[in-house]
Amino acid sequence: MELVEEILNGDFRAIAKAISMIENDGSEKEELIDRIYPKCGRAVVWGITGPPGAGKSTLVDKLIEQERINGKKIAVIAVDPSSPFSGGAILGDRLRMQEHATDPGVFIRSMASRGHLGGVAGATTDAVKVFDAAGFDLIIIESIGVGQTEIEIIEVSDIVILVLVPGMGDEIQALKAGVMEIGDIYVINKKDHDGADKLEAEVNYMLSLKEGDQTKNPVLLTSAIHNDGIKNLISEIQIYLKNIQESMELQKKRKTRIKQEIKQIFSGKIMYEINKKINTEIMEEWAEAIYNGDISPYSFINKKVQTFLKEQK
Amino acid sequence: MELVEEILNGDFRAIAKAISMIENDGSEKEELIDRIYPKCGRAVVWGITGPPGAGKSTLVDKLIEQERINGKKIAVIAVDPSSPFSGGAILGDRLRMQEHATDPGVFIRSMASRGHLGGVAGATTDAVKVFDAAGFDLIIIESIGVGQTEIEIIEVSDIVILVLVPGMGDEIQALKAGVMEIGDIYVINKKDHDGADKLEAEVNYMLSLKEGDQTKNPVLLTSAIHNDGIKNLISEIQIYLKNIQESMELQKKRKTRIKQEIKQIFSGKIMYEINKKINTEIMEEWAEAIYNGDISPYSFINKKVQTFLKEQK
Repeated sequence: MELVEEILNGDFRAIAKAISMIENDGSEKEELIDRIYPKCGRAVVWGITGPPGAGKSTLVDKLIEQERINGKKIAVIAVDPSSPFSGGAILGDRLRMQEHATDPGVFIRSMASRGHLGGVAGATTDAVKVFDAAGFDLIIIESIGVGQTEIEIIEVSDIVILVLVPGMGDEIQALKAGVMEIGDIYVINKKDHDGADKLEAEVNYMLSLKEGDQTKNPVLLTSAIHNDGIKNLISEIQIYLKNIQESMELQKKRKTRIKQEIKQIFSGKIMYEINKKINTEIMEEWAEAIYNGDISPYSFINKKVQTFLKEQK
Repeated sequence: MELVEEILNGDFRAIAKAISMIENDGSEKEELIDRIYPKCGRAVVWGITGPPGAGKSTLVDKLIEQERINGKKIAVIAVDPSSPFSGGAILGDRLRMQEHATDPGVFIRSMASRGHLGGVAGATTDAVKVFDAAGFDLIIIESIGVGQTEIEIIEVSDIVILVLVPGMGDEIQALKAGVMEIGDIYVINKKDHDGADKLEAEVNYMLSLKEGDQTKNPVLLTSAIHNDGIKNLISEIQIYLKNIQESMELQKKRKTRIKQEIKQIFSGKIMYEINKKINTEIMEEWAEAIYNGDISPYSFINKKVQTFLKEQK
């Protein structure tokens, strides 16, 4: 595969092609990943998540700026809220690329949060491998942290930065509690807005309730739009990463990530076999029977599962 | 099962117990659902979704109030953003129950958006069956419409009401586009806020781009907090439901829902078999080998999948 060589040389077109290949989820992708895999393992992955409107994009822009000054080659994967039907990414690279478009050390790519067999995590994990093999030092995964995506980002990242913002009402409060367990570093952005201090106190309080936690989770205030607190954030990220590397927690995280990956690929493959077996016609027949109330769903499906497993040779 | 009788009698304690059983996802649940299944099929399911802060909860409260006046017995399933690790629902019934706590015609229940084998859809679908069999006329599923949950709510609902709100910035814009395909009725809440007219125009424009759409999707303005536009919304919901019932679209939707359900239960069962086979020790070994770069992930897993399928007898 010529593409493999080009990726290892850091060729942007080849990388873009590889990511599309991953999104298309064909067998070509598998060969590609298997071929570049031995070259992976050097890049560090930051996951940046938080509710809509927290200013994640601006924060990522400022982090890129700063880390470029520090000489890093950076890839950004923006996991977009996507159309459940078309699977297309919405925000699009076009909104974000502009500022860094002429910088050969920055590659920004949107990926849709649906449509991939293995979910976001599947496609993102493979994309991370491509960037890693292509010589990027830092891979930033930015995603809206609500529901499903919030757990997927931790599966893929070495460190998770959870971005919160003051004054978003009750639902955000709940959300905040829900995502409280996933952050390694907590950022309260828009720190000049009303309620930033209160939010900081709340986050610290919630963190103090976490049981059995060995590592200290910093809570930092930033104003991304004013480039305020960015250097400090990067320095805290570095300290955190150094700590988890020394305690072997990072290595453990990465192995856990591989386990998730194995599970996802494995179940994806099995699902593929199932979908081959239970074709549209059969499904139609089963649904009709259940819809008409002729049979009860669980006992029926339990029988079918046993049959499926027996038929595999 | 005594519980079955109690549920069919509409006993609230029995219903609560059944929902917990569903959340615990054991084999008891399967027997329960199979037993009540013949009594299902009467209730109508409304899905209400939208971004955090759109005022969905207030809207649901007002809809309940109005539909109680109309004599309906109502169950609400609030799909909460949940802790990815503990799987616990956060918002909690306590926040919401208060107003309707003394009303014997309203049952409100939070369910966590994670932790269930079949995802939200799996647990919610089963909960819907319990409420349906227990004689509720209307089941409202409220969920934050971002990412995964947005598609799951359509799998479970007869009609999806997408709640939007003016002035939430670019990310919400993107999100809006992303969820644009899932709504049957669009509600612009907080209509007295700046930008409501602009948002209405945008939504109408986006809807006009939908291809091959046979049904008309109403776009309505409400101010839930001022109880403004609620009656009109309910009337539009009724018209929409009547239309899709007459065109047989509703029946088709419900069959599609059953198909999803079959797939989810089926794959859940297979995953269970896989997890039995690939135990922690084996997984550890595989992850270690891949982590060390001794083997390439896809070719390795492909082989293991073949072995797994062959070993099933």
